[in-house]
Amino acid sequence: MDFMEVIKGRRSVRLYRGDPVGDDTLESLLEAVRWAPSWANSQCWEVIVVRQEETRRRLVDALPQGNPGRQGILQAPVTLVFLGIKGKSGFWKGEACTDKGDWFMYDLGLAMENLCLAAHAVGLGTVIIGYFDAAQVAEILQVPQDKEVVAMTPVGFPERVPDPPQRKEISQFVYHEGYGRQE
Amino acid sequence: MDFMEVIKGRRSVRLYRGDPVGDDTLESLLEAVRWAPSWANSQCWEVIVVRQEETRRRLVDALPQGNPGRQGILQAPVTLVFLGIKGKSGFWKGEACTDKGDWFMYDLGLAMENLCLAAHAVGLGTVIIGYFDAAQVAEILQVPQDKEVVAMTPVGFPERVPDPPQRKEISQFVYHEGYGRQE
Repeated sequence: MDFMEVIKGRRSVRLYRGDPVGDDTLESLLEAVRWAPSWANSQCWEVIVVRQEETRRRLVDALPQGNPGRQGILQAPVTLVFLGIKGKSGFWKGEACTDKGDWFMYDLGLAMENLCLAAHAVGLGTVIIGYFDAAQVAEILQVPQDKEVVAMTPVGFPERVPDPPQRKEISQFVYHEGYGRQE
Repeated sequence: MDFMEVIKGRRSVRLYRGDPVGDDTLESLLEAVRWAPSWANSQCWEVIVVRQEETRRRLVDALPQGNPGRQGILQAPVTLVFLGIKGKSGFWKGEACTDKGDWFMYDLGLAMENLCLAAHAVGLGTVIIGYFDAAQVAEILQVPQDKEVVAMTPVGFPERVPDPPQRKEISQFVYHEGYGRQE
Protein backbone atom coordinates (compact mmCIF):
# COMPACT_ATOMS: atom_id res chain seq x y z
CA MET A 1 0.00 0.00 0.00
CA ASP A 2 1.29 3.46 -0.85
CA PHE A 3 2.23 5.35 2.28
CA MET A 4 -0.31 8.14 1.81
CA GLU A 5 -2.98 5.49 1.24
CA VAL A 6 -2.24 4.17 4.72
CA ILE A 7 -2.53 7.65 6.18
CA LYS A 8 -5.73 8.51 4.33
CA GLY A 9 -7.34 5.07 4.55
CA ARG A 10 -7.07 4.63 8.32
CA ARG A 11 -10.50 4.94 9.92
CA SER A 12 -11.77 4.71 13.48
CA VAL A 13 -13.31 1.24 13.29
CA ARG A 14 -16.23 0.51 15.63
CA LEU A 15 -17.50 -2.85 14.31
CA TYR A 16 -15.14 -5.83 14.34
CA ARG A 17 -15.11 -9.47 13.37
CA GLY A 18 -13.96 -11.86 16.05
CA ASP A 19 -11.26 -13.47 13.87
CA PRO A 20 -8.05 -13.98 15.80
CA VAL A 21 -5.05 -11.65 15.54
CA GLY A 22 -1.88 -13.73 15.54
CA ASP A 23 1.00 -13.22 17.92
CA ASP A 24 3.39 -12.33 15.10
CA THR A 25 1.03 -9.70 13.76
CA LEU A 26 0.56 -8.24 17.20
CA GLU A 27 4.31 -8.19 17.72
CA SER A 28 4.78 -6.19 14.51
CA LEU A 29 2.27 -3.62 15.79
CA LEU A 30 4.13 -3.34 19.09
CA GLU A 31 7.32 -2.96 17.10
CA ALA A 32 5.74 0.10 15.48
CA VAL A 33 5.09 1.53 18.95
CA ARG A 34 8.68 0.76 19.89
CA TRP A 35 10.01 2.87 17.02
CA ALA A 36 7.93 5.96 17.76
CA PRO A 37 9.86 9.12 18.56
CA SER A 38 9.65 10.59 22.05
CA TRP A 39 11.09 13.48 24.03
CA ALA A 40 14.84 12.82 24.34
CA ASN A 41 14.05 9.19 23.49
CA SER A 42 12.27 8.83 26.84
CA GLN A 43 9.96 6.09 25.47
CA CYS A 44 7.51 7.05 28.20
CA TRP A 45 4.91 4.42 27.32
CA GLU A 46 3.90 0.93 28.36
CA VAL A 47 1.26 -1.29 26.78
CA ILE A 48 -0.94 -3.96 28.31
CA VAL A 49 -2.23 -6.57 25.85
CA VAL A 50 -5.67 -7.79 26.90
CA ARG A 51 -7.01 -10.86 25.16
CA GLN A 52 -9.11 -12.49 27.90
CA GLU A 53 -12.78 -11.89 27.29
CA GLU A 54 -13.57 -11.53 30.97
CA THR A 55 -11.01 -8.75 31.30
CA ARG A 56 -12.28 -7.02 28.16
CA ARG A 57 -15.79 -7.12 29.63
CA ARG A 58 -14.52 -5.42 32.75
CA LEU A 59 -12.74 -2.76 30.69
CA VAL A 60 -16.01 -2.00 28.91
CA ASP A 61 -17.58 -1.27 32.29
CA ALA A 62 -15.10 1.61 32.66
CA LEU A 63 -16.40 3.28 29.48
CA PRO A 64 -19.45 5.54 29.65
CA GLN A 65 -22.71 4.19 28.28
CA GLY A 66 -23.01 5.22 24.69
CA ASN A 67 -19.27 5.26 23.99
CA PRO A 68 -19.15 3.50 20.62
CA GLY A 69 -15.82 1.95 21.59
CA ARG A 70 -17.62 -0.44 23.95
CA GLN A 71 -18.72 -2.92 21.34
CA GLY A 72 -15.33 -2.76 19.64
CA ILE A 73 -13.63 -3.95 22.81
CA LEU A 74 -16.13 -6.80 23.10
CA GLN A 75 -15.97 -7.83 19.46
CA ALA A 76 -12.26 -7.57 18.61
CA PRO A 77 -10.03 -10.32 20.00
CA VAL A 78 -7.45 -7.94 21.49
CA THR A 79 -7.48 -4.62 23.27
CA LEU A 80 -4.28 -2.66 23.85
CA VAL A 81 -4.17 -0.36 26.86
CA PHE A 82 -1.54 2.41 26.76
CA LEU A 83 0.07 3.73 29.92
CA GLY A 84 2.15 6.87 30.32
CA ILE A 85 5.25 7.22 32.47
CA LYS A 86 5.29 10.67 34.02
CA GLY A 87 8.25 12.85 34.89
CA LYS A 88 10.38 12.12 31.82
CA SER A 89 8.95 13.73 28.72
CA GLY A 90 9.13 17.54 28.75
CA PHE A 91 11.82 17.50 31.43
CA TRP A 92 15.37 18.81 31.41
CA LYS A 93 17.70 18.13 34.31
CA GLY A 94 14.79 16.88 36.37
CA GLU A 95 12.56 19.93 35.88
CA ALA A 96 9.62 20.45 33.55
CA CYS A 97 11.15 22.89 31.09
CA THR A 98 8.19 24.18 29.06
CA ASP A 99 4.85 25.82 29.82
CA LYS A 100 3.15 22.52 28.93
CA GLY A 101 4.43 20.61 31.96
CA ASP A 102 4.66 16.87 31.36
CA TRP A 103 4.68 15.88 27.68
CA PHE A 104 3.70 12.24 28.20
CA MET A 105 0.34 12.81 26.52
CA TYR A 106 2.08 14.14 23.42
CA ASP A 107 4.44 11.18 23.24
CA LEU A 108 1.59 8.74 23.82
CA GLY A 109 -0.10 10.33 20.82
CA LEU A 110 3.00 9.81 18.67
CA ALA A 111 3.18 6.15 19.70
CA MET A 112 -0.55 5.49 19.26
CA GLU A 113 -0.48 6.88 15.75
CA ASN A 114 2.29 4.48 14.80
CA LEU A 115 0.16 1.65 16.16
CA CYS A 116 -3.00 2.71 14.31
CA LEU A 117 -1.19 3.15 11.00
CA ALA A 118 0.74 -0.11 11.30
CA ALA A 119 -2.52 -1.92 12.06
CA HIS A 120 -4.28 -0.41 9.07
CA ALA A 121 -1.34 -1.29 6.82
CA VAL A 122 -1.99 -4.99 7.54
CA GLY A 123 -5.77 -4.75 7.28
CA LEU A 124 -6.55 -4.39 10.99
CA GLY A 125 -8.82 -1.80 12.52
CA THR A 126 -8.35 0.36 15.61
CA VAL A 127 -10.23 3.13 17.38
CA ILE A 128 -8.54 5.35 19.93
CA ILE A 129 -10.57 5.45 23.13
CA GLY A 130 -9.74 8.07 25.73
CA TYR A 131 -13.12 8.63 27.37
CA PHE A 132 -13.26 6.18 30.29
CA ASP A 133 -12.61 5.99 34.01
CA ALA A 134 -8.82 5.67 34.12
CA ALA A 135 -8.78 4.84 37.84
CA GLN A 136 -11.17 1.96 37.25
CA VAL A 137 -9.01 0.59 34.42
CA ALA A 138 -5.91 0.95 36.58
CA GLU A 139 -7.61 -1.16 39.23
CA ILE A 140 -8.71 -3.84 36.75
CA LEU A 141 -5.21 -4.16 35.31
CA GLN A 142 -3.31 -3.62 38.59
CA VAL A 143 -1.51 -0.57 37.23
CA PRO A 144 0.68 1.06 39.89
CA GLN A 145 -0.12 4.62 40.92
CA ASP A 146 2.99 6.09 39.33
CA LYS A 147 1.76 5.10 35.85
CA GLU A 148 -1.09 6.84 34.02
CA VAL A 149 -3.69 4.87 32.09
CA VAL A 150 -4.08 7.06 29.00
CA ALA A 151 -5.90 5.38 26.13
CA MET A 152 -6.91 2.05 24.69
CA THR A 153 -7.85 0.58 21.35
CA PRO A 154 -9.36 -2.67 20.18
CA VAL A 155 -7.32 -4.41 17.47
CA GLY A 156 -9.19 -6.65 15.08
CA PHE A 157 -10.40 -7.16 11.55
CA PRO A 158 -13.07 -4.62 10.62
CA GLU A 159 -16.62 -5.82 10.17
CA ARG A 160 -17.44 -2.45 8.67
CA VAL A 161 -15.19 0.45 7.74
CA PRO A 162 -17.02 3.74 8.23
CA ASP A 163 -16.90 6.66 5.83
CA PRO A 164 -14.33 9.26 6.81
CA PRO A 165 -15.67 12.13 8.90
CA GLN A 166 -15.33 15.49 7.21
CA ARG A 167 -11.97 17.20 7.47
CA LYS A 168 -11.09 20.87 7.37
CA GLU A 169 -9.49 21.95 4.12
CA ILE A 170 -5.75 22.61 4.34
CA SER A 171 -6.43 26.32 3.89
CA GLN A 172 -8.59 26.21 7.03
CA PHE A 173 -5.78 25.17 9.35
CA VAL A 174 -2.55 26.19 7.61
CA TYR A 175 -1.07 29.69 7.60
CA HIS A 176 2.09 31.11 6.04
CA GLU A 177 4.81 33.09 7.77
CA GLY A 178 2.47 34.27 10.52
CA TYR A 179 -0.84 33.42 12.14
CA GLY A 180 -3.89 33.91 9.94
CA ARG A 181 -1.89 34.70 6.82
CA GLN A 182 -2.85 32.86 3.65
CA GLU A 183 -0.38 32.62 0.82
CA MET B 1 8.87 1.77 0.72
CA ASP B 2 7.32 -0.92 2.92
CA PHE B 3 5.20 0.57 5.65
CA MET B 4 7.26 -0.79 8.53
CA GLU B 5 10.39 0.53 6.82
CA VAL B 6 8.91 4.00 7.05
CA ILE B 7 8.15 3.51 10.75
CA LYS B 8 11.57 2.08 11.56
CA GLY B 9 13.60 4.26 9.23
CA ARG B 10 12.32 7.64 10.45
CA ARG B 11 15.03 9.41 12.45
CA SER B 12 15.24 12.74 14.20
CA VAL B 13 17.33 14.61 11.65
CA ARG B 14 19.52 17.45 12.92
CA LEU B 15 21.66 18.26 9.86
CA TYR B 16 19.95 19.38 6.68
CA ARG B 17 20.81 20.39 3.17
CA GLY B 18 19.35 23.69 2.00
CA ASP B 19 17.72 22.21 -1.13
CA PRO B 20 14.21 23.56 -1.62
CA VAL B 21 11.08 21.64 -0.64
CA GLY B 22 8.46 22.17 -3.32
CA ASP B 23 4.96 23.43 -2.66
CA ASP B 24 3.38 20.19 -3.87
CA THR B 25 5.53 18.12 -1.56
CA LEU B 26 4.73 20.36 1.36
CA GLU B 27 1.05 20.14 0.54
CA SER B 28 1.20 16.34 0.66
CA LEU B 29 2.75 16.53 4.14
CA LEU B 30 0.00 18.87 5.30
CA GLU B 31 -2.50 16.45 3.81
CA ALA B 32 -1.05 13.79 6.13
CA VAL B 33 -1.70 16.12 9.08
CA ARG B 34 -5.21 16.70 7.81
CA TRP B 35 -5.98 12.97 7.91
CA ALA B 36 -4.78 12.38 11.46
CA PRO B 37 -7.36 11.12 13.93
CA SER B 38 -8.44 13.36 16.81
CA TRP B 39 -10.85 13.34 19.74
CA ALA B 40 -14.34 13.30 18.23
CA ASN B 41 -12.75 14.56 15.00
CA SER B 42 -11.98 17.86 16.72
CA GLN B 43 -8.94 18.49 14.46
CA CYS B 44 -7.61 20.73 17.19
CA TRP B 45 -4.45 21.76 15.34
CA GLU B 46 -3.20 24.58 13.15
CA VAL B 47 0.11 24.81 11.32
CA ILE B 48 2.20 27.83 10.39
CA VAL B 49 4.57 27.29 7.47
CA VAL B 50 7.71 29.38 7.89
CA ARG B 51 10.01 29.70 4.90
CA GLN B 52 11.45 33.19 5.37
CA GLU B 53 14.99 33.00 6.67
CA GLU B 54 14.59 36.08 8.85
CA THR B 55 11.61 34.50 10.62
CA ARG B 56 13.44 31.18 11.04
CA ARG B 57 16.34 33.06 12.64
CA ARG B 58 13.93 34.63 15.09
CA LEU B 59 12.41 31.23 15.92
CA VAL B 60 15.88 29.91 16.71
CA ASP B 61 16.26 32.66 19.30
CA ALA B 62 13.33 31.09 21.19
CA LEU B 63 15.21 27.76 21.55
CA PRO B 64 17.63 27.28 24.42
CA GLN B 65 21.32 27.37 23.60
CA GLY B 66 22.50 23.85 22.93
CA ASN B 67 19.16 22.60 21.58
CA PRO B 68 20.33 20.65 18.53
CA GLY B 69 17.16 21.67 16.70
CA ARG B 70 18.57 25.18 16.26
CA GLN B 71 20.78 24.43 13.32
CA GLY B 72 18.05 22.34 11.71
CA ILE B 73 15.72 25.34 11.63
CA LEU B 74 18.48 27.44 10.08
CA GLN B 75 19.57 24.85 7.52
CA ALA B 76 16.29 23.38 6.29
CA PRO B 77 14.24 25.58 3.93
CA VAL B 78 10.98 25.19 5.86
CA THR B 79 9.93 25.01 9.49
CA LEU B 80 6.42 23.97 10.46
CA VAL B 81 5.05 25.33 13.73
CA PHE B 82 2.14 23.39 15.25
CA LEU B 83 -0.52 25.12 17.33
CA GLY B 84 -3.12 23.51 19.55
CA ILE B 85 -6.73 24.63 19.91
CA LYS B 86 -7.79 24.18 23.51
CA GLY B 87 -11.21 23.30 24.88
CA LYS B 88 -12.20 20.72 22.26
CA SER B 89 -10.22 17.51 22.65
CA GLY B 90 -11.07 15.58 25.82
CA PHE B 91 -14.37 17.42 26.22
CA TRP B 92 -17.93 16.14 26.29
CA LYS B 93 -20.85 18.56 26.32
CA GLY B 94 -18.46 21.42 27.02
CA GLU B 95 -16.78 19.84 30.04
CA ALA B 96 -13.41 18.10 30.30
CA CYS B 97 -14.55 14.52 30.82
CA THR B 98 -11.39 12.65 31.87
CA ASP B 99 -8.74 13.03 34.56
CA LYS B 100 -6.32 14.24 31.85
CA GLY B 101 -8.10 17.54 31.24
CA ASP B 102 -7.48 18.88 27.74
CA TRP B 103 -6.26 16.27 25.26
CA PHE B 104 -4.89 18.74 22.70
CA MET B 105 -1.33 17.60 23.40
CA TYR B 106 -2.29 14.00 22.62
CA ASP B 107 -3.96 14.95 19.35
CA LEU B 108 -1.03 17.16 18.39
CA GLY B 109 1.16 14.09 18.86
CA LEU B 110 -1.04 12.03 16.56
CA ALA B 111 -0.89 14.73 13.89
CA MET B 112 2.85 15.33 14.22
CA GLU B 113 3.60 11.63 13.78
CA ASN B 114 1.65 11.59 10.52
CA LEU B 115 3.76 14.52 9.36
CA CYS B 116 7.08 12.96 10.35
CA LEU B 117 6.26 9.64 8.70
CA ALA B 118 4.91 11.21 5.52
CA ALA B 119 8.05 13.33 5.28
CA HIS B 120 10.33 10.34 5.73
CA ALA B 121 8.36 8.39 3.11
CA VAL B 122 9.38 10.99 0.50
CA GLY B 123 12.99 11.29 1.68
CA LEU B 124 12.58 14.37 3.88
CA GLY B 125 13.84 14.74 7.42
CA THR B 126 12.13 16.17 10.50
CA VAL B 127 12.92 16.56 14.18
CA ILE B 128 10.22 17.32 16.71
CA ILE B 129 11.18 20.32 18.83
CA GLY B 130 9.21 21.04 21.97
CA TYR B 131 11.81 22.72 24.15
CA PHE B 132 11.51 26.45 23.43
CA ASP B 133 9.85 29.58 24.74
CA ALA B 134 6.30 29.19 23.43
CA ALA B 135 5.32 32.74 24.39
CA GLN B 136 8.24 34.12 22.39
CA VAL B 137 7.25 32.06 19.33
CA ALA B 138 3.64 33.17 19.71
CA GLU B 139 4.83 36.77 19.60
CA ILE B 140 7.05 36.21 16.55
CA LEU B 141 4.22 34.56 14.61
CA GLN B 142 1.39 36.75 16.00
CA VAL B 143 -0.43 33.75 17.43
CA PRO B 144 -3.54 34.80 19.35
CA GLN B 145 -3.69 34.02 23.05
CA ASP B 146 -6.39 31.38 22.68
CA LYS B 147 -4.06 29.15 20.65
CA GLU B 148 -1.14 27.20 22.14
CA VAL B 149 2.20 27.03 20.36
CA VAL B 150 3.10 23.36 20.94
CA ALA B 151 5.93 22.08 18.76
CA MET B 152 7.86 22.73 15.59
CA THR B 153 9.95 20.83 13.12
CA PRO B 154 12.26 21.74 10.29
CA VAL B 155 11.43 19.99 7.02
CA GLY B 156 14.26 19.41 4.59
CA PHE B 157 16.52 16.92 2.92
CA PRO B 158 18.88 15.28 5.42
CA GLU B 159 22.56 16.12 5.23
CA ARG B 160 23.19 13.27 7.64
CA VAL B 161 20.85 10.62 9.04
CA PRO B 162 21.88 9.68 12.57
CA ASP B 163 21.98 6.16 13.92
CA PRO B 164 18.82 5.23 15.81
CA PRO B 165 19.00 5.76 19.56
CA GLN B 166 18.58 2.58 21.53
CA ARG B 167 15.05 1.38 22.12
CA LYS B 168 13.62 -0.73 24.93
CA GLU B 169 12.90 -4.31 23.91
CA ILE B 170 9.20 -5.07 23.49
CA SER B 171 9.34 -7.23 26.63
CA GLN B 172 10.48 -4.16 28.57
CA PHE B 173 7.34 -2.13 27.92
CA VAL B 174 4.63 -4.67 27.07
CA TYR B 175 2.63 -6.72 29.57
CA HIS B 176 -0.13 -9.29 29.16
CA GLU B 177 -3.54 -9.28 30.82
CA GLY B 178 -2.34 -7.18 33.73
CA TYR B 179 0.46 -4.81 34.71
CA GLY B 180 3.89 -6.41 35.03
CA ARG B 181 2.79 -9.78 33.70
CA GLN B 182 4.95 -11.37 31.00
CA GLU B 183 3.49 -14.02 28.77
